[in-house]
Order: sequence, then C-alpha cells, then structure tokens
Amino acid sequence: MAAPQKFLDFIDSNVPKLIDRLAEAVAIPSISGDASRRQDVYKMGSWLEAQLNKFGVKTEAIPLGQEHIEGQVLELPPAIVGRIGEDPKKKTILIYGHFDVQPANVSDGWNTDPFKMHFDKESGRMYGRGTTDDKGPIMGWLNVLEAHHNLGIELPVNMRFCFEGMEESGSEGLDEFIGTEAKKGNDGWFGGVDCVCISDNYWLNDRTPALTYGLRGLTYFNVLVSGPGADLHSGIFGGAVYEPMTALIALMGKLVTQDGQILIPGVYDGIKPAASDELEIYEKLDYSVQDLEASAGGKIAISDDKSTVLMARMRNPSLSLHGIEGAFSGVGAKTVIPATVGGKFSLRLVPPQQPDDIRAKVETYLQAEFAKLNTKCTMKIEYLHGGIPWVADHRHWNYQAAKNATEAVYLRSPDFTREGGSIPVTLTFAENLGVNVLLLPMGRGDDGAHSTNEKLDLSNYIQGTKLLGSYLYEVASITSKA
Amino acid sequence: MAAPQKFLDFIDSNVPKLIDRLAEAVAIPSISGDASRRQDVYKMGSWLEAQLNKFGVKTEAIPLGQEHIEGQVLELPPAIVGRIGEDPKKKTILIYGHFDVQPANVSDGWNTDPFKMHFDKESGRMYGRGTTDDKGPIMGWLNVLEAHHNLGIELPVNMRFCFEGMEESGSEGLDEFIGTEAKKGNDGWFGGVDCVCISDNYWLNDRTPALTYGLRGLTYFNVLVSGPGADLHSGIFGGAVYEPMTALIALMGKLVTQDGQILIPGVYDGIKPAASDELEIYEKLDYSVQDLEASAGGKIAISDDKSTVLMARMRNPSLSLHGIEGAFSGVGAKTVIPATVGGKFSLRLVPPQQPDDIRAKVETYLQAEFAKLNTKCTMKIEYLHGGIPWVADHRHWNYQAAKNATEAVYLRSPDFTREGGSIPVTLTFAENLGVNVLLLPMGRGDDGAHSTNEKLDLSNYIQGTKLLGSYLYEVASITSKA
Repeated sequence: MAAPQKFLDFIDSNVPKLIDRLAEAVAIPSISGDASRRQDVYKMGSWLEAQLNKFGVKTEAIPLGQEHIEGQVLELPPAIVGRIGEDPKKKTILIYGHFDVQPANVSDGWNTDPFKMHFDKESGRMYGRGTTDDKGPIMGWLNVLEAHHNLGIELPVNMRFCFEGMEESGSEGLDEFIGTEAKKGNDGWFGGVDCVCISDNYWLNDRTPALTYGLRGLTYFNVLVSGPGADLHSGIFGGAVYEPMTALIALMGKLVTQDGQILIPGVYDGIKPAASDELEIYEKLDYSVQDLEASAGGKIAISDDKSTVLMARMRNPSLSLHGIEGAFSGVGAKTVIPATVGGKFSLRLVPPQQPDDIRAKVETYLQAEFAKLNTKCTMKIEYLHGGIPWVADHRHWNYQAAKNATEAVYLRSPDFTREGGSIPVTLTFAENLGVNVLLLPMGRGDDGAHSTNEKLDLSNYIQGTKLLGSYLYEVASITSKA
Repeated sequence: MAAPQKFLDFIDSNVPKLIDRLAEAVAIPSISGDASRRQDVYKMGSWLEAQLNKFGVKTEAIPLGQEHIEGQVLELPPAIVGRIGEDPKKKTILIYGHFDVQPANVSDGWNTDPFKMHFDKESGRMYGRGTTDDKGPIMGWLNVLEAHHNLGIELPVNMRFCFEGMEESGSEGLDEFIGTEAKKGNDGWFGGVDCVCISDNYWLNDRTPALTYGLRGLTYFNVLVSGPGADLHSGIFGGAVYEPMTALIALMGKLVTQDGQILIPGVYDGIKPAASDELEIYEKLDYSVQDLEASAGGKIAISDDKSTVLMARMRNPSLSLHGIEGAFSGVGAKTVIPATVGGKFSLRLVPPQQPDDIRAKVETYLQAEFAKLNTKCTMKIEYLHGGIPWVADHRHWNYQAAKNATEAVYLRSPDFTREGGSIPVTLTFAENLGVNVLLLPMGRGDDGAHSTNEKLDLSNYIQGTKLLGSYLYEVASITSKA
C-alpha cells in the first residue's frame, strides 16, 4: 500500500521547515565522548522528547546509570523511549536511532562550523556533525510524525521508539535496559513489537538505495610482550638484551598475509563458499572497484573483481593490525627500547564464526608462535572485545516492505547489502525481542560519518523521509508471515 | 705527579660547601627541551660564567643563533667558553660539559622535588635532576678551580672550557662553533689544546671507576608505508584493501632476529672479530650478566656469558625497533586501518661501519623486501639521523694520565670501557681539533641519568672532584708523545 499522496505532498511543501529542524538538532553539540559536552547530550534528549510529545508520542526518559569518564562520575544520558498507537489490529514497529554525535572541531579540517549546519545550494548538500549520523534519520521520523499529526492522518502502524545518547561511546547502559524491558513482555516498552527498523547506516555508493541485512562480528586483541623493567636506552642495551618489540613484530607478522589471508589455523572453519544465488547478489550490486578505491582514497583494492572485493567486505572474515601501545609513536627519532608493547589487532567475523571460538584459536596460535621465538621476553594476551556476526532473513516481510517502499519512492530496487562493520544494538534487539531487524539507511556511502565535513544530501533527507513514511504503509499492508 | 695534599685536604674540609654548590645548580631548572624554561637555561649559563670568573677564568658567552621550538623562535643558550693559564711550557687541556638538563616532574615518579636537591644521609646519595648529568661533573671542575684559587696554588696545566646549554636537545649550534673556532688555530678559543677531557658518562657498574675510549655510531630510519587517502574503518574496508600496517609489520620483521642478528646483507662487512688482547679487556672488566639484568630490570640478557653481553654492548652493532608513527597507539580498542605508518628503527654502528654505507645497504634491502610483498601500498624510506662510531687510542698519554689519577684517588685501576650510546660532541672535538679525547666519568652506572630519581653518590662527587684535579697533575707530569 503506497503512502497517501497528501503525506508526500506535505513533505515536499515543507522542505525549508524540515531543513530548519535538522539545523536545530545539529546546533546542539551532543558529543557523548566529551565530558564537557555532557549537558548538550541531555539537552538533545530533552529537545527530542519535546518534539515527540508535540506530535502525540508518549515518552519517558529512562535513566541508564552512571559512567566514569575523564576522571569524573557522570550520569549517562537517558534513553528516550516512546509509543504512539495501541491498535491490536495493526503491526507494531520499533524504531531505533541515536541523538549523540562524534566529536568535531573546525581545526580538524572542516570547511564550516560543524555545529552550524551549512546548506550548500549548488551541491544540494547539508554539512554538519550528525547530519547523516544519526540526526538526519531521526529528523526523518519526526518529519513523518509531524506530517501525520498536522494532516490529521492516523499512522498505519503502532510505533515504538528507542533513541539513545551514547551510541558513539559504546551504548553504555542500553543493552541492559533492552534486556530488562524485553523480559517484561507486553508490560514493557517493547511489548508486541513485530519488527525493528534501524536507520543508522549508509548506501553502498552514492547512487543506489540499500537495505542492509548483515553485519560482521568482531574480536579485538592486545598481545602484550614485556621484557625490561622500564624503557631502556638502545645505545646502552641494544644487542645485549632480548627486545619486546622484536618479539611483538615477529608475532604480528604471523597473523595475516599482505593479500589478507588469515594465518590462524582453523579460523575459516565452517564458512561456506558463496552459493550461486549469493554470488548473484554481489554481481547485481551497483558497485565497482572504482567505488571502493574512491572511498578508500587510494588504488589499493585487493582485487580487480567487483564480487571479490564485495565478498571481502560483506561475507568474509578479515584481520587488521591497528597499532602498538607502549612503543615510540611520536615524531622524530627516539632511541628507546620500549619495556612493554601491546600489539592491537582485530578480526571481523562472519557466520558461523563465534568470538569465543576464534579467541581460543588466536590464543593457541600466538602461544605456539611465541614459544618458537625462544625469547626471554614474556607474553600476555588481552581480549578487549567480542561481538557476534549478524545476518537477518532478507526474505522476511520487513525487508519486502522496505523494498516496496524504496521502489515507490526511488523508482528503483534497493541494493541488498551486508556491512563489514558492526552496529551492536542490532544484535541486541534481534536476540532480546526475537523479531526481524531491518537496517534502512537514509544517507549515502560518501557522507563521511565520523569524518570531517560530514554531510547529508538534501535529496536523501527529503526522499528518505518519504521512504520512512512509505515503509510504514508497506509494513501495514504486506501479508505477514510472522 | 700526584696532586698536592693541600688540594685534597681542601676538598675534604669543604664537603658541605661543595654540596651546596651542586644544590644551587640543581635548583635552576635549565631544561633545554622546554621552551617555557629557556630563561632558566640562560640563567644557568650566567651563573656558571660568574663562578668561573670568581676563580680567575676569563670567559665569553658565545651566541649560537636561533632555533624554532614549539612554534616560537628562541635564542639558543650561548656556549660559555673560558680560559685560564697561558704558560707555553704547560700542556693545555680542553674541558667540555653541559649545563642543561632533561625534563623532570614529580608526577613522573620522583620521590622528591627534582629541582630541590635531596641529600639522603643514610645512603649518601644526592637526588635531583642534573646531579649526575651533567651538573655534578661541572661542579667538580668548579671545585678544583676554587681550591686552587683559594689556596693560591697555580694550576699545573693551562685550561680551556667549553660548556653548552643544548646538549639534551641535539647540541644545536655547537658543532658549527667548534668547527669555526678550530679553524682559527691559535687565535681561537681552542688554540694550542693538547687533549680534551669530557666528563659526561658513567661507570659500567656501581663499583669500579672507568675510562671510556669508544662510542657506537648510529643510523636512524623511518620506513613509511602508505595506502589509503585517510585512515579507514576496518569494518568497512578490512579484507577489501591492502593495508599499510600489514606491509610495514612484514618489513620490520625482516630486520633483526629475536637474538639480535641483523638480517641486512653486508651490514657486518669489515667488522673484525675481537682479538685475544681485546677479549682480555672484556674478561677483566668488573661486570656480570647480573649487573646487566639488574640495570635492565629484567632477566633478558642475550647470553649467560659476560664477555658476550659486553661485546654486544660495546663493540658489536645492534638494531632496535623503536615504534610506529601514525598507527593506533592509545589505550583501548580502536578499529582503524591507519593510512600511513612509519616504522622507526635504528642501528648502532661500530668501526669500520659508516652511516652512509649502512644507509645504502638498509635502503637496498628494504626495497627488495618490499617488492617481494607484492602490495599496492607504497613505501618511502626516511633517513633521520646518522653518527659515526668513535674509538680513541686508549694507550695515549691522556688515558694514561687518567689511569694514574684514578689509581691515586680510588686505589684501583679503572675499567677501560666502550659505550653503546653516542655523545656526538666527542667526535666533533676529535675531528676538528685532531687531538685525543678522553671520557672521564664521575657517576655510577645506576645513577639514572634521564630517568626519575636521578642521583649522584656523595662519594663519587667528592672522590670525583679529587680525580679531576689529580688528572690535571698527571697530565702535566706524564711524558707526552704528542
């Protein structure tokens, strides 16, 4: 069922107002990772709550406890949950978004003040921190709510909202809240939810709308090698002692080949090669090796074959070496033998890889390789983080509804993508609520989330708002198998 | 010829006054590497000049130009040069020392204020920044001058002084001054100098006086590997692109084995194995593997054989991996693919190795190894620093005089040592003046120069002052072959 024309017309007739709404949100520098900006995160939550209330959504600000940041004890920004519609005959959709942003300073290389949204009419781009990640999509939902409220149209589904203010800082406190709330069943905020829609990722390119049905998992390690009691002078000790850096570099060199093959035995166990219908997905995607190299900013693609690079990103595991803690990392020429060095690396995981199993394999391998070094240094492996890979059923009605909505708004079929990164809350919802989760991106692959000059194209904002609204209508009308 | 008893007695009778002199010098925080402390470096130079003048030394503060530090243009601290004695029948000795110090803060782990000297009567140790490096030795020379001045004894040699205030920050401007001054011959400050004495290093252990006749050279490299245009997210790009860190770690892993063998072809060319008389030096040295491990703070000696570890430090080249610039070096778990990473490593050189030749061998090798990686990343090698190794003739009368003085004061023969590190001004004097240079240490191997809780034992200060004075008398009386 298509969205009513007057909804679509409302959006088109109110473009300046919708731009102003996003500008107002961008102007609140709700940086969750900066203790000195914590008040702005609270303020952003209150602002959002007031907007939701204005359009008929009942809300509650949920306290999520405290955190220790920069030596202070701070209240976590509350999650803002909300509900509108209680019709048992309608489907109930849970919407997630986050109202905090990454840090941004003009001195990082922004062309304009990151917290004063700049609309460049020529390019049609709106620049500012949070335009695409994730204030734009949240404003999209507010726009949909406002349109229905002002036009006096009933929403086609019951809606539930879960907006958080700590996504850019580890979603502190949210998992626990979702778990507790899910256990309450129909008495909780998420009672009766039929599916989840998250708009917090991006198209694969800058041309084709996308629906995302998979995310890779993660295991992150710090392999620590120690030797002397303190940093030593390489003039005095160089040659006379075993050096931790030499051992660590040797270990790090045993993890992955230059072309990305992971050398840890058993790490690929159980990963099935892509079947012909899966291969077809990659072949069909609107993407090229040039797109990859343009977004990477260098001619460094692992292959000249489109499907190979797409599979490398979406459905194969990878291992990256991130850096070394404790070694000399400054400019210039310091002649130090660092006493303890920690090599940081992580693996991106795909089904059926599980973090715990991979962790065991990595540890066994590193211990064996370390023993071969025959050094007097010592080694300790720290496991810093683990996240399970996620793949949803993209044949589910939730995805079909989003596909129909995309075709209605963009007049073309979306790319069905898997992402190489992770959005941990996706799995939290999927596991706790046991329903299908859809990632429905608003922005483009070149929006520069987390980077300087983050932007959202006006067309993505306007069409994206229509897409979110249309999705609700398609969800309402589709034959549910759930 | 032994030093006159009344000189030795003067020192013994004035211990509290000599301690006060060192405390006064330590109290001026003349940190050359900290722009905000530059006034204190000037102040320290003026203080030193006034002391020299008081004891009859004619001085001049030599401007050394400007430097750029922390975004400011600052006048370099002047070198303080001086002369006393113009008797053509006497030998002329040039003394070098530096009056600047390394940074120090209580928060680094000092037990007491680093710029308020603390004399611990129980241990007999004087704690404070600069006590051993290098204010203690400079005060030693002032003590010698004061004794002769106050007692009305003529110095046995003509003395020339060159004190600088930038040693801890690369001796900016000094080499040029020495070169210019040397060319002036008898018209310059260093005219007629017969030998040089530098007191700016340490005994090998905490028991045995030492004379040092060799220093290793240095070549320092930064091998830069680049790929993407900016840092990438390992979730989005991991597996799909060639990663600079993977290539850099592979290269760094090809440089040296865990037990210190350098893998660069030709790097050992021309280095002669130790002959039996040289081996005898190492066997005789008052040193043990336990000494090495105690000073390193860990059981990490490359061998259980004393001579092997001593030769590793003193007469063999070594290669140390210092760290990586541009990679993730913080705490925590950042999932970055760094865009450009620079691996820092250096080689300590021994005769006949020459920095330029080693540089060429390193570059050829790295280029060949990089080609084998077959990566789309690019590599660039930066050469950050080069210093020639130095070995003096320890049979020279300058060393014999120092040996005689040591035996007179300490009643034992000194260790003849070579150091693993470098003191670049040593070579500058040797090359420009063409005379023998002696390193005559005052402090012990455990003094903690550059570290927290730097100290000088009172006995080393007092006996060391007698040693410096006695050295002048031994120089005066020894049969010169020069």
